[in-house]
Amino acid sequence: MMIFAENELLESGREARAKARAGDSAPTTGVAEGLVQANMISVPRDWAWDVLLYAQRNPKPVPVLEVIEDGGWESTLAPGSDLRTDIPQYRIWRDGELTEEPIDAVEAWAEHPDLVTFLIGCSFTFEAGLNQAQIEIPHQTACRNVAMYRTGVDCVPAGRLRGKLVVSMRPIACDRVADAVRISGSYPSVHGAPVHIGDPDALGIRDFYAPEYGDAPLALREGQVPVFWACGVTPQAAIVDSKVPFAITHAPGCMFVTDLLNETYAV
Amino acid sequence: MMIFAENELLESGREARAKARAGDSAPTTGVAEGLVQANMISVPRDWAWDVLLYAQRNPKPVPVLEVIEDGGWESTLAPGSDLRTDIPQYRIWRDGELTEEPIDAVEAWAEHPDLVTFLIGCSFTFEAGLNQAQIEIPHQTACRNVAMYRTGVDCVPAGRLRGKLVVSMRPIACDRVADAVRISGSYPSVHGAPVHIGDPDALGIRDFYAPEYGDAPLALREGQVPVFWACGVTPQAAIVDSKVPFAITHAPGCMFVTDLLNETYAV
Repeated sequence: MMIFAENELLESGREARAKARAGDSAPTTGVAEGLVQANMISVPRDWAWDVLLYAQRNPKPVPVLEVIEDGGWESTLAPGSDLRTDIPQYRIWRDGELTEEPIDAVEAWAEHPDLVTFLIGCSFTFEAGLNQAQIEIPHQTACRNVAMYRTGVDCVPAGRLRGKLVVSMRPIACDRVADAVRISGSYPSVHGAPVHIGDPDALGIRDFYAPEYGDAPLALREGQVPVFWACGVTPQAAIVDSKVPFAITHAPGCMFVTDLLNETYAV
Repeated sequence: MMIFAENELLESGREARAKARAGDSAPTTGVAEGLVQANMISVPRDWAWDVLLYAQRNPKPVPVLEVIEDGGWESTLAPGSDLRTDIPQYRIWRDGELTEEPIDAVEAWAEHPDLVTFLIGCSFTFEAGLNQAQIEIPHQTACRNVAMYRTGVDCVPAGRLRGKLVVSMRPIACDRVADAVRISGSYPSVHGAPVHIGDPDALGIRDFYAPEYGDAPLALREGQVPVFWACGVTPQAAIVDSKVPFAITHAPGCMFVTDLLNETYAV
């Protein structure tokens, strides 16, 4: 059941989309807190089955919240929205290469009349839960983007799509790790519980202090453990690894803000 | 992460499939308790996108556990299995009409070389959790099949697929309803928490004592509330309503027994 925000909170979501539409390219961390934010990937119809099956087979990194067919750009999670303009920054991919990072996707959208667009759950939903429980999230304290890594773990392939699992990392105080597991686990359809706790090497991470996406993490403090969650950037890694001919995605950290309460996805 | 059974429990699953393969058409209620059982729907490739999208849009009644392409019949949830024979009884559908109920689907499978097969979560998983918590499930006590109803609620359409929500009903003691919600809710990918508690009329149920699928319920006793869960028979209702040209499904109550522990799907 979709639970829509009301009053000021609803306004804050509409405002966030209006700002992006007007050209503001700022990341959406902490924006309209309480509302669901979503990753986006849009591909020509010919690739839609592969993406949806990849999502079904890899539900932790690719939890699908909505699918919009036939080149549509309005999300039912945010009536009146325009997915071509309401995300702060986009990435255009051609044959698996990142070719442009425009602040709107109107022109790119017009290249293929049959786009199928996937909105995918985002960790900002469970971060709100961590904040409420007073679990410190160091990159937020430091006003940085979360560190995201390409791991050595293969996702389950689907059709022509294959790629590595991408994870986001938050250093969590040892005595709050169990709470962080419990709280994020109660949002199974937006990445859910961590996939890995501790030892980055065991996950095949190349260099802990040089993540492939987002900002480098601050130095781990004593009493902190690195906790890794499956990340919605995983489809972008699959675009690269599978040389997908054409795709439009959000830029990491620049999400689509919906009108839905995070509670929609709480178990 | 798939958690496979071991030792006797693993044997009990293999034995259940071997019995079905040998021609036993008995329902699988209470069989190999502790193992995940699954609903099945198999359609020609041309309809696979519609089914997977219908599942994505209606995750409570249609939680997809596995998709097998290209006419394949072995499930990774049960290595060595044969989906054409290991279910006790099948239903063959042509242009939305139920035409045969064979005990194996070898011939039907051979009609379309491009079948895409969907395994869908089943309420037996959370029933095991209810049993463990000593919540009485009256149809089990009476050795009957669960009552399943076609409701007045429309599922969200996808492509050419549309249909009503089908629910299963269990009368639960008033003082255990909250526990039943909590326990089933901890298995969100196998139907999860109830969709409706109390008043069958409000759900558009035609006749509480004449369900469209399964056995009629016993008379409600004082202190019991009818509790309704989304049901994996929902895709069969969509086959009828959408006049799908060809499909193979399990017969209601006759499930595919996997090698997976129910704990695989616990949050």
